[in-house]
Amino acid sequence: MRGLAIAASLLLAGCASAPAEMATTPPPPAPPPAEAAKPPVALQYLYGSPEAAVAVRATNARIADYGVWRIKERPKDSVVLAPGATMDAPAFEPCGDKPFAAVFDADETLIWNLGPMRYFAQEGTSFDPKVWDQWEKTGAGKAVAMPGTVEMVSKLRAAGIAVIANTNRSAANAKGSEDTLRAAGLGDFKHGETLFLMGDDAGGSSKDGRRATIASKYCVIILGGDQLGDFSQQFNVKDLPAAQRMALATSATALWDKGWFLFPNPVYGPWEKLGWDDAFPSDKNWEPK
Amino acid sequence: MRGLAIAASLLLAGCASAPAEMATTPPPPAPPPAEAAKPPVALQYLYGSPEAAVAVRATNARIADYGVWRIKERPKDSVVLAPGATMDAPAFEPCGDKPFAAVFDADETLIWNLGPMRYFAQEGTSFDPKVWDQWEKTGAGKAVAMPGTVEMVSKLRAAGIAVIANTNRSAANAKGSEDTLRAAGLGDFKHGETLFLMGDDAGGSSKDGRRATIASKYCVIILGGDQLGDFSQQFNVKDLPAAQRMALATSATALWDKGWFLFPNPVYGPWEKLGWDDAFPSDKNWEPK
Repeated sequence: MRGLAIAASLLLAGCASAPAEMATTPPPPAPPPAEAAKPPVALQYLYGSPEAAVAVRATNARIADYGVWRIKERPKDSVVLAPGATMDAPAFEPCGDKPFAAVFDADETLIWNLGPMRYFAQEGTSFDPKVWDQWEKTGAGKAVAMPGTVEMVSKLRAAGIAVIANTNRSAANAKGSEDTLRAAGLGDFKHGETLFLMGDDAGGSSKDGRRATIASKYCVIILGGDQLGDFSQQFNVKDLPAAQRMALATSATALWDKGWFLFPNPVYGPWEKLGWDDAFPSDKNWEPK
Repeated sequence: MRGLAIAASLLLAGCASAPAEMATTPPPPAPPPAEAAKPPVALQYLYGSPEAAVAVRATNARIADYGVWRIKERPKDSVVLAPGATMDAPAFEPCGDKPFAAVFDADETLIWNLGPMRYFAQEGTSFDPKVWDQWEKTGAGKAVAMPGTVEMVSKLRAAGIAVIANTNRSAANAKGSEDTLRAAGLGDFKHGETLFLMGDDAGGSSKDGRRATIASKYCVIILGGDQLGDFSQQFNVKDLPAAQRMALATSATALWDKGWFLFPNPVYGPWEKLGWDDAFPSDKNWEPK
């Protein structure tokens, strides 16, 4: 799963600074499929546990409640950072009298990709971009809306808030992704209007440009995602402790649960480059006698 | 990690119905330590990622805000279910004029157990109750308060809300756990007053009896934990889909983020018994051509 997760995070999260480093690291030897009597714990937790279902549904409930509350009085600004703005000096795209929108990542934010996640884990293979490309094209019906997501999306739309997806799925596979979201029960997402994909602009895996495009047409009151790159590309730095400091800065703290909403995803992410001493500070090492 | 997680969930979560089944399942062969160039993804995410830090700190902020708001008007009831009450017919312990309290699990709710989690994963060993027993005795200084937990605990105490831990650590190791919480910067927890442990009553790993004891002395406005057993023993049934239905019932939904607060923990839990078809419904199976 380690190889899967690293590659998936690059593809799905658009961690701009990581690929050079990652590409030189050979994937660890895949365990023989026979060993995998059960899914890896991260997959058991996210896709199967009552705890994750409760956490995701509660996040969706917070989003819906927030959206309905937020538009009672028109906000001055979107929650999309203006070009060049940082968490030290935050500035936001203006709302004007634009229509309201909520912008979400797709993968592990609106839908769980059960089909390929089981396939990769069960085969013991690394993430394979060619397989993922097929998944984008043919996955309709094999991905599911996350717990409470159908209700959340319906509540926002009923309140007059446009629901938009901004994902690093490929623009070349727009129809497959539209079909996948519709088959999951999430209604219509239309490429170029309510579905923004990698390849729509020259920004590659950075979602900043697409966010700016959306914010030029909408007053964005909500951003939702499973990785920090779903909120601002500035978090996609190689130095994860620096990303963490930015994400925990006062200006960011003012946004979490108040415009910015984060879903749990322990299955893949930019954090997969963390080594033992990164995840576990050495002054906390302990062993039994 | 699978063996670790299963055994840890039994010990820490008190999944009453699982041990009989688990005890007969041999642990999977441990991978050779040389393979583990990096921690398993679940550990990277929980203990190292900016995303988990943001999610945990936001949860702590919600708890502190909720606590301060909740005591402005005295509630009629605690958020502790009355004996025999179910999610179908919820009933709660009365508040009367008792002092306010917030009750938390300890492990992966107030503190991250960095010492033994790294040790188990790096050694490639299963969870070992003897090692864990040593950890409870000697871990002070090697566990850390989770992001935002020190601030959350301080805010509650400053508002006059007692902060109480109800954990399945052993009563025999009370001093070690008191020392561990204090060394993590969380202040004083005193066994029998603000620290309740497995062995305090005849309930074993069920926390219901200890919750009732606490609710007899306090108006409990907050329960916090990483597993459903931290809220009610009724969730610790063998049938996880049934537990999930109960946890997503309307009566429970009314409590999540409004008295009941759940922290992410993809590292261990009762859900580790899930097989492939449990975590991934077979009608979502997919493979590339």
